[in-house]
Amino acid sequence: MKLGELGEFGLISRIAANVSMGHGVITGIGDDAAVTAVTPGMQLLTSTDMLLEGVHFRRSWHAPYLLGRKSLAVNISDIAAMGGIPRWATLSLAIPKDCSLEYLDSFTKGFLSLAADHGVALIGGDTCRSNSGLIISVTIQGEQLPEMVVRRSGAQPGDEIWVTGTQGDAAFGLALLEGKIAPFRQGRGGETDDAERYLISRLLDPTPRIATGRALAESGLVTAMIDISDGLMADFEHIAELSGVGGTIQADTLPISPALQSASQHLSDFPYSLVLSGGEDYELAFTAPVDHRKKIIEITKKSGIDATPVGIVTSSPGVKAVRSDGSQIAPQAHGFTHFT
Amino acid sequence: MKLGELGEFGLISRIAANVSMGHGVITGIGDDAAVTAVTPGMQLLTSTDMLLEGVHFRRSWHAPYLLGRKSLAVNISDIAAMGGIPRWATLSLAIPKDCSLEYLDSFTKGFLSLAADHGVALIGGDTCRSNSGLIISVTIQGEQLPEMVVRRSGAQPGDEIWVTGTQGDAAFGLALLEGKIAPFRQGRGGETDDAERYLISRLLDPTPRIATGRALAESGLVTAMIDISDGLMADFEHIAELSGVGGTIQADTLPISPALQSASQHLSDFPYSLVLSGGEDYELAFTAPVDHRKKIIEITKKSGIDATPVGIVTSSPGVKAVRSDGSQIAPQAHGFTHFT
Repeated sequence: MKLGELGEFGLISRIAANVSMGHGVITGIGDDAAVTAVTPGMQLLTSTDMLLEGVHFRRSWHAPYLLGRKSLAVNISDIAAMGGIPRWATLSLAIPKDCSLEYLDSFTKGFLSLAADHGVALIGGDTCRSNSGLIISVTIQGEQLPEMVVRRSGAQPGDEIWVTGTQGDAAFGLALLEGKIAPFRQGRGGETDDAERYLISRLLDPTPRIATGRALAESGLVTAMIDISDGLMADFEHIAELSGVGGTIQADTLPISPALQSASQHLSDFPYSLVLSGGEDYELAFTAPVDHRKKIIEITKKSGIDATPVGIVTSSPGVKAVRSDGSQIAPQAHGFTHFT
Repeated sequence: MKLGELGEFGLISRIAANVSMGHGVITGIGDDAAVTAVTPGMQLLTSTDMLLEGVHFRRSWHAPYLLGRKSLAVNISDIAAMGGIPRWATLSLAIPKDCSLEYLDSFTKGFLSLAADHGVALIGGDTCRSNSGLIISVTIQGEQLPEMVVRRSGAQPGDEIWVTGTQGDAAFGLALLEGKIAPFRQGRGGETDDAERYLISRLLDPTPRIATGRALAESGLVTAMIDISDGLMADFEHIAELSGVGGTIQADTLPISPALQSASQHLSDFPYSLVLSGGEDYELAFTAPVDHRKKIIEITKKSGIDATPVGIVTSSPGVKAVRSDGSQIAPQAHGFTHFT
């Protein structure tokens, strides 16, 4: 069947047929608005992200199943950054003529697979035609007890700066897809293909750190948190600005994946810019008093991903990155920003 | 200043500077997610609508201030249709290069003016560049006591079908803008210009029926409700389908504005198709037992807009429109649908 034969309401029914009711869902897809019940005593967390073909993704690189997963993952990641529990999502799609029903089925399957991973219910959305590319707009709602919510604004001078997982993988994956790291591919065997696939998968299918964000929030040990979507330097600058502090990142302590380590051996210089300023890893950056270090290592490991202390919050404003020899790394383009 | 100089975060700050905190807002724009407090005992209502340049609007027809208002109005209208109280909105914008900062300022001003009219707080969003037209995605959240929420699914055979306000104005306004009703303009004086302006304003600056929807919901008298965005016939079909009923609309009882009455005098036939199937009036259609008629007329008048009974819910499925002589009006294109 073609989308034109199915029509707008047929497409909505087709999506709705695969959706199961979730926690607190009273009325899901199909009315003027969804009706949900926030857990008594909890506050509501809301975030929204738009993904545009040609700006945020290319259909030729991104299989629809993974694009569906990523559309939700980047939203869920914002709930993780608040220490929240993700609950309900809306999905709006503007669909170009050359998008087949099979493509949309695969996209929806991917979206719903990540939703199932995290207990998120799809409760509504909007569909229309697009005269240009595919447009995806997702709004995610989560919840958490008021005293557990972690904001960007609580970092204190002397706190350690932490990151989860490894840095720069997604940016390296993008550079690979863009053909900017061509030598990497030459003269290497199967093991390199694995590294390459890993780095690209970090870009195309990121893992939102929900369990870790929530465990950190509920531990009461962290003072500020953000997800790293625009690059560590740019995103930590948001924490610094809202907390009225600065920070120094020890660039040589940043956790690097074996895949990126292997790949970067073939480059003339170590790609500090990717690791410091590469976006889309969707790891968490957070701050905590130094004496919580041991507990934080335990908590994060238990939640399924390691965390690493990578710097110190300073009372003087400004965020800088230094190497182990004390030299400062030039603050080049620190992360992606639109319009400029 | 130009948008390119301001940058993404500059634009967000510029918008945030004009936003006041609203009911239940704990943390608004500026963190990974907004934090809000749903009123204890109330359920959360969520709806989302996307507006695309070239599909839903033309920038040449729609002044940015009014486009900002309408972007929120069409969303708020869905909360009205549930009988809810609108509270919090997110606004995502994908902005083409030829959209000036003045344009965006005016758009935001319009959006926030309608938000202020209805006590809605802007709590977040997303901004990015667009390689094609202007893309607007809004998610609205509202709340209401569980027992007050009105769904599409409660219509009972024998109930009367009601509409608020007047029908077909926005569709006539669109036909005017599209040049489809050219004779209308000829040989008429100032009074016609007023009618013309009124009909076009109904398209460009619709009024969501929040006070009326809420008053009806809280009265407990109505059995089902929907907002008329795709045309009365198409939207009532949603009520019929979800309620497992049918309906007969008395076409000659549909409330017509003086402006549309005046304008349609110049047409060879009365424009039943616009009145029955024209979209975008954002009036409410609802059903209620016949013996509540007097109370409903009182409640709606008190809420600021008249309501009119226009038909009867039937136990046999199918929605049809008949004239006062009993003849059925051909079910032509009943409302707008994407893809087909």
